[in-house]
Amino acid sequence: MIVFTDYLWFNTKKRQEFVRITEEIAEIVGKSGVKEGTALVSAMHITAGVFVNDWEGGLMRDFQEWLEKLAPSGLNYQHHQTGEDNADAHLKRTIMGHQVTLPITAGKLDLGPWEQVFYAEFDGQRKKRVVVKAMGI
Amino acid sequence: MIVFTDYLWFNTKKRQEFVRITEEIAEIVGKSGVKEGTALVSAMHITAGVFVNDWEGGLMRDFQEWLEKLAPSGLNYQHHQTGEDNADAHLKRTIMGHQVTLPITAGKLDLGPWEQVFYAEFDGQRKKRVVVKAMGI
Amino acid sequence: MIVFTDYLWFNTKKRQEFVRITEEIAEIVGKSGVKEGTALVSAMHITAGVFVNDWEGGLMRDFQEWLEKLAPSGLNYQHHQTGEDNADAHLKRTIMGHQVTLPITAGKLDLGPWEQVFYAEFDGQRKKRVVVKAMGI
Repeated sequence: MIVFTDYLWFNTKKRQEFVRITEEIAEIVGKSGVKEGTALVSAMHITAGVFVNDWEGGLMRDFQEWLEKLAPSGLNYQHHQTGEDNADAHLKRTIMGHQVTLPITAGKLDLGPWEQVFYAEFDGQRKKRVVVKAMGI
Repeated sequence: MIVFTDYLWFNTKKRQEFVRITEEIAEIVGKSGVKEGTALVSAMHITAGVFVNDWEGGLMRDFQEWLEKLAPSGLNYQHHQTGEDNADAHLKRTIMGHQVTLPITAGKLDLGPWEQVFYAEFDGQRKKRVVVKAMGI
Repeated sequence: MIVFTDYLWFNTKKRQEFVRITEEIAEIVGKSGVKEGTALVSAMHITAGVFVNDWEGGLMRDFQEWLEKLAPSGLNYQHHQTGEDNADAHLKRTIMGHQVTLPITAGKLDLGPWEQVFYAEFDGQRKKRVVVKAMGI
């Protein structure tokens, strides 16, 4: 059994940004030597997430507007009494999901035709990390 | 270590439909020979999901009405400028989740008393796939 | 390959409660002997969840108020025609997520600086279970 671990670093220019990471994950899977198994891709910070969806600019903006409606910034959150101002980022990442597990088949990510993997930053402009753990044979 | 892969195909009659797949997954787990491990069950299309919840018709309708409130169809989504009309399906599947990992113990799905596995279709009436990957010993 | 299974039991005093379980999971991972792998942590009841976020009291209350807005209790849900009164608990747990997969590196949970694991109860005051499955080498 192979277990292979790697990390991706992010430091987004904008506070909120979606970054496509499909190729980076595929490269790690290639390095791992896993032919049949899975790759866990998980944000290590609680104001960021990882999700799978379509790579289409309009949809990415729809997602961001939708998240702003469901979990608005600028409200008087209790979390802000600690000096923080990012409670909405915690909520938004909860909607999008904080991790995915990707199937590996015949040495490659076994994704559907439109599946792309994204890092979702909701409180960026600083260094943050995603752990990737490939497991299998 | 065993890694066993199978796929389930769906072609729902309605655009939006929840399909119970607990038995189908259990059958694949049986075929895999895995006695202790996990089974990843993941939608391969970005307008469908997989979730675990209660098998009760009223609740299924509650879920669908609730999703329509949180992520309405018929809005003027930017994604629709590409000719698509299914932005809400992308959002709804995000709420429900696109995959689950099920524990396998003593050769069987280790589910709680009311846990049932569902395929959640939000843009159906065409062929779509779910990947199942059983891993363990 | 090691596959190690354990269960955590809960019986919360309040109907809705978030319980931090990071140490309990770390202890199970220690007992498992897994040095490199993952631990699946999954609620076995459909009105409870497991999530990773920040351990800050104000934020925990923000989460609960937010969930009450997105999935209010006391509505006339169709699920309640069965005699149940907890449809909102099913919806709330769906938002928070029903499971997480935690990376294990060098024999320890490989969590970011602020990542804490929580059990999320939405219909408590009775015995409920979480399954933990550590897998790896």
